[in-house]
Amino acid sequence: MRPQQIIATKRDGKALSDSEIADFIDGVVDGSWADYQITALIMAMFIRGLNRREQYSITSAMLHSGTMMDFSDIDAPKADKHSTGGVGDKTSLIIAPLAAACGLAVPMISGRGLGHTGGTLDKLESIPGFDVNLPFSNFKKVLKKCGFALAGQTKQIAPADKKIYALRDATATVPYIPLIVASIMSKKLAEGLDVLVLDVKTGSGAFIQKYAESLKLAKALCETGKSFSVNTQALITDMSQPLGRFVGNALEVYECVRILRNEADDLMKHTLELSVELTAMMLIQSRIASSMDNAKSRIEKALASGEAFDRFRQNVELQGGDTKICDKPDMLFAKGLAKVPVQAGIGGYLAEIDTFELGRSICDIGGGRLKAEDGVDHAVGYECLKKIGDRVQKGDELGIIYCRDKKQGNRISEKVVAAHKISREISRTTKLIRAAV
Amino acid sequence: MRPQQIIATKRDGKALSDSEIADFIDGVVDGSWADYQITALIMAMFIRGLNRREQYSITSAMLHSGTMMDFSDIDAPKADKHSTGGVGDKTSLIIAPLAAACGLAVPMISGRGLGHTGGTLDKLESIPGFDVNLPFSNFKKVLKKCGFALAGQTKQIAPADKKIYALRDATATVPYIPLIVASIMSKKLAEGLDVLVLDVKTGSGAFIQKYAESLKLAKALCETGKSFSVNTQALITDMSQPLGRFVGNALEVYECVRILRNEADDLMKHTLELSVELTAMMLIQSRIASSMDNAKSRIEKALASGEAFDRFRQNVELQGGDTKICDKPDMLFAKGLAKVPVQAGIGGYLAEIDTFELGRSICDIGGGRLKAEDGVDHAVGYECLKKIGDRVQKGDELGIIYCRDKKQGNRISEKVVAAHKISREISRTTKLIRAAV
Repeated sequence: MRPQQIIATKRDGKALSDSEIADFIDGVVDGSWADYQITALIMAMFIRGLNRREQYSITSAMLHSGTMMDFSDIDAPKADKHSTGGVGDKTSLIIAPLAAACGLAVPMISGRGLGHTGGTLDKLESIPGFDVNLPFSNFKKVLKKCGFALAGQTKQIAPADKKIYALRDATATVPYIPLIVASIMSKKLAEGLDVLVLDVKTGSGAFIQKYAESLKLAKALCETGKSFSVNTQALITDMSQPLGRFVGNALEVYECVRILRNEADDLMKHTLELSVELTAMMLIQSRIASSMDNAKSRIEKALASGEAFDRFRQNVELQGGDTKICDKPDMLFAKGLAKVPVQAGIGGYLAEIDTFELGRSICDIGGGRLKAEDGVDHAVGYECLKKIGDRVQKGDELGIIYCRDKKQGNRISEKVVAAHKISREISRTTKLIRAAV
Repeated sequence: MRPQQIIATKRDGKALSDSEIADFIDGVVDGSWADYQITALIMAMFIRGLNRREQYSITSAMLHSGTMMDFSDIDAPKADKHSTGGVGDKTSLIIAPLAAACGLAVPMISGRGLGHTGGTLDKLESIPGFDVNLPFSNFKKVLKKCGFALAGQTKQIAPADKKIYALRDATATVPYIPLIVASIMSKKLAEGLDVLVLDVKTGSGAFIQKYAESLKLAKALCETGKSFSVNTQALITDMSQPLGRFVGNALEVYECVRILRNEADDLMKHTLELSVELTAMMLIQSRIASSMDNAKSRIEKALASGEAFDRFRQNVELQGGDTKICDKPDMLFAKGLAKVPVQAGIGGYLAEIDTFELGRSICDIGGGRLKAEDGVDHAVGYECLKKIGDRVQKGDELGIIYCRDKKQGNRISEKVVAAHKISREISRTTKLIRAAV
């Protein structure tokens, strides 16, 4: 069928058939649809909407535009966690070894940071030598040996998604739930999972900030996962402030190593708490644990015994990384980094953080990328010293900018201060876990 | 402003400001907007709509993306006619010399045929040697000498329109009135006119087939023209059957020459009648004629005296064409053309013609083009021997296909027969001129 006919159908608000959607995705992959025809249809989908059947159909077509990973020779339940992305969101590096230590196989295909958020691949690459570009055979070898593997999307996995996402990013058509679902799930379903746990962020640092929309997205993701016979559950979690203590690639790895070494401090407790919650869901959904209590006691044991940490070290070694960072996490702080303190201009209670702006500021000094082709400075970042609800005095340090020189830090410090709203009275406190779906 | 921001505004159904629209059109011309961003915005405009101010604004931005012609050194009123396109619609070749003979200057920038319709430039090029690629200085010289000039759009005229139209054609976004208005008027307003008369077609062979939509388009075109201080009027005219006797480039020129020679037969009378009506409107709007009667008597004189025909011959000569076609119009029939008669399968009254299908069939044997880059066979075409309302006997010739060989004609004859609907009783007759706006 000609692209124009399919475009006209959605333009006029009619539902597309499965074969029309398959034609479209085939055309994206084989190049018979021009980019300008793809974006015209995507815009029509955005405005006119996709019904549930169309959402499943486009997810399925995108999934089958590439290959499915086959882990049928691994006995352990295959489970993964996916987050919709946030600032300081580093739980993957803790969850993967923790879940592996508890008996799961975790084939984690991750992404890079874009815009105000970081990405797991960038964080891993701040470990000297760490290789995220594993061909499937190596990926599987690592997975078998240490129970988890972390790598980027290969060309074989959901190739339609890569092209469509780049075009959506350029045409203001990213924030539409059925297309977000298709993009996330076409990649995650290619991992051949039994269980998928989703961390859907909500609040000022999330891609979808409004709670009601986050809830909608979580439900759509779970329904889609289940319709493909993957046991899928979601938590909606707080992204109204950075998660844990550090933001920035190497700094976040530092925080994770400290947590895996059982050295978490009070500022890192949310990172640990969320990692434990998500891992526990993976264990329960995989029927490795019979209850939340049971799951959490297994997790505590895996942490306290050092089993999770050992798995992490083993993985770093298998993926070519320098295991010295496990023993001397301080080496993750680059030599000669400058620190620029961010001070409260008034006293009161920390009421709100514009986490999007904070993430963008770190991006501005090289910690993230505005365009997919940009490079990243792994060393720079931010340390959060105050959390929402904390009492602050005028002049207190709200946080510290880690930068290459003070000039660089001073360039963004005003914006970072302005991203913190301090009020006279305690207006609200935050709840880390908002809901389970 | 980033393209994404402008796209998002229209995506969400909000009106675009004049400066946002100007940014868009600038970006189309200077290439800073990618094709896939242009089509995303065009689709959002199509679905969300453009209000009247936005319609004027986009017309103005497209007009000013190129240069305006300056005819201020010509005293005669500058007037043009534009048709929305149809099958056998050849009035430009009659109106231009007729209006010139009555005292108007007609700077006619024309187009080529696309899809089921023909185009004035293709028709002119069936005259041996006729040059439609005139640089502005030559165009003006011809206009001054014989009162009219016929040429194609140069790169300097509304360059944004050319790119946008090609993208609309590929993304099912052509049939939207504000975009049609902007496309037509950005070119016509560049002619620096005092008067513009529009022939808005309606019926099975028109681009916009429904009468109510044609009326809407006519009103939108007139309002837009007037808002740019061009005295604009429109007729809505019948395109439920081919206009006049012939369809096809050289064959249509033949019909025009016969009419200009005062040799119109009964099958050509609609072509003459519509040409006279449209020219009369141009004369009245230009205040050269004081009334319809006055206008028509001037036109009859210009025709009967041979003044219009002389202007035509002069123009052919000035634009490099072979003037022998004026004296021996039969030479427009290519040597060795085959004729395949199209016969009525049953008796009754000719009730309907699927004029779109008829035009497409002629296109299929080379008389038109499916894509802008295709070539055209000027010789082939169709002769209409029966008009809607005519009584036909089984076996009567409805028309004749003019083709390179009988095989070619036989290939489409069944389709052409099927495009004629014959019913037992007279169901309706057609009215050539449906309304004036």
